[in-house]
Amino acid sequence: MGSCLCKERQHPATFNYFHFMKIVLLGAGNVATVLGKMALDAGHTIVQVYNRTPAKAESISKMLGAEVIDHLSRLSDTADLYLIAVADSAIASLTENLHVSKGILVHTAGSVPMSALLPASKNIGVIYPLQSLRSSRMPAAPFPLLVDANTPDGLLLLSDFASSLSPMVSQANDEKRLRLHLSAVVVNNFSNHLYTLAKDYCTQHELDFRLLLPLIKETADRLEAGDPTDWQTGPAMRNDEATMQQHLQLLESNPTLANIYRLISESIREYHRGN
Amino acid sequence: MGSCLCKERQHPATFNYFHFMKIVLLGAGNVATVLGKMALDAGHTIVQVYNRTPAKAESISKMLGAEVIDHLSRLSDTADLYLIAVADSAIASLTENLHVSKGILVHTAGSVPMSALLPASKNIGVIYPLQSLRSSRMPAAPFPLLVDANTPDGLLLLSDFASSLSPMVSQANDEKRLRLHLSAVVVNNFSNHLYTLAKDYCTQHELDFRLLLPLIKETADRLEAGDPTDWQTGPAMRNDEATMQQHLQLLESNPTLANIYRLISESIREYHRGN
Repeated sequence: MGSCLCKERQHPATFNYFHFMKIVLLGAGNVATVLGKMALDAGHTIVQVYNRTPAKAESISKMLGAEVIDHLSRLSDTADLYLIAVADSAIASLTENLHVSKGILVHTAGSVPMSALLPASKNIGVIYPLQSLRSSRMPAAPFPLLVDANTPDGLLLLSDFASSLSPMVSQANDEKRLRLHLSAVVVNNFSNHLYTLAKDYCTQHELDFRLLLPLIKETADRLEAGDPTDWQTGPAMRNDEATMQQHLQLLESNPTLANIYRLISESIREYHRGN
Repeated sequence: MGSCLCKERQHPATFNYFHFMKIVLLGAGNVATVLGKMALDAGHTIVQVYNRTPAKAESISKMLGAEVIDHLSRLSDTADLYLIAVADSAIASLTENLHVSKGILVHTAGSVPMSALLPASKNIGVIYPLQSLRSSRMPAAPFPLLVDANTPDGLLLLSDFASSLSPMVSQANDEKRLRLHLSAVVVNNFSNHLYTLAKDYCTQHELDFRLLLPLIKETADRLEAGDPTDWQTGPAMRNDEATMQQHLQLLESNPTLANIYRLISESIREYHRGN
């Protein structure tokens, strides 16, 4: 078994594999910045950062010690990993003009199929960070990197690379990644929007939103200790019509939040009916 | 100024005030358990726990070293603080049969006016914990206690008591408390329900919901470092219609989550339009 694993882990010469990779970043936004910084910290080298508007890549390339290029004709042909981190909608037009003949080309998008990269490279893959990334904030804790590749060797290479950045690496094909992206939208984008609406409501009524931070933190933290279903509390859960009506009256001048209040309360009531 | 503050802080003899209070808990549920435990840990004494079904009060009274009573006629008349922690809808019927002649009577509800206690006592107040409390889990971090009382002396007494339990004590009248309760429902109950729906969706598709925990935690934690508005990301925020349509297709067999997806995405798009 041991020798078998060793054999599996032999990387073919075509990948020019070393533990420390030479990386080209295509894109200079939040995902490129955070993954680039993590790769640098793990000992890899960022050789180039490509961006059509080179001024936008100045600070990231300085931080990463990489050359800025603004034209794909100047792309290094000796890197191990070409990592696309641009808006989902920009991937197609980028791959039209890109040709990676050595190394592996990957994107970082939750909802874009891996095959979108085929026009630009024979060896393709995905490294999808299951985290909301901002260049201004390195996440405090490790987060999952979901990898995929179109060959077993590519998958090993990307798994090894991802494992040097995070202890939480697993494989996810297009469908799995898309479903996890949808789930991420629900738990992150939607919750964060609820926080936004609650903050505006507090501000409007001269209440300090920061009073709610321990509650928000506890709501997230206790998922380590049990399922969200078991932690549910509140007026909708206990079918407390009087309190819900009081709340809706307070939202009369706030139709957006009132609609969200009605829909989610109804869903909670329905879900926990008979509990 | 110093002497003025000292004078304000003289407590009238009618309250029989000591730093360490003698407390009667009316109720034996989540709020009574957590606040009772916090009071005990802070050096106060829980003299009695009242519950109509005494069996339900057995474990809490044992933990707190308190006598269980199942009839209000056996209520101690020498406690300093009578703390009601029952369902909002049960407060009215409880106060009908309750008479507190010494000490102060408080409730712990976000959406019940303080005056609901007037039938039962001359000295009344509120201690509202701005946290989702469960007897099975003591919150890891301090949380706000919002106090109110119908006299300045009562307010001082409750502020001092609350300050012995939490470093985050502030005053909130009925309206402020109700609005904060509404905000708490939005950030806690609604977010937790989103987690519930996302977990069910993951389970349905054999995905590990725990992969989303670092994202959920980060979404909460980074509010310490900036407004939720500034942290918003995702397809709705960047008006990425293609990804939203892909997600809605994945939710075809899940109309509840699809409706929530549509409504909140629309609200995010509307909110960040032109950003």
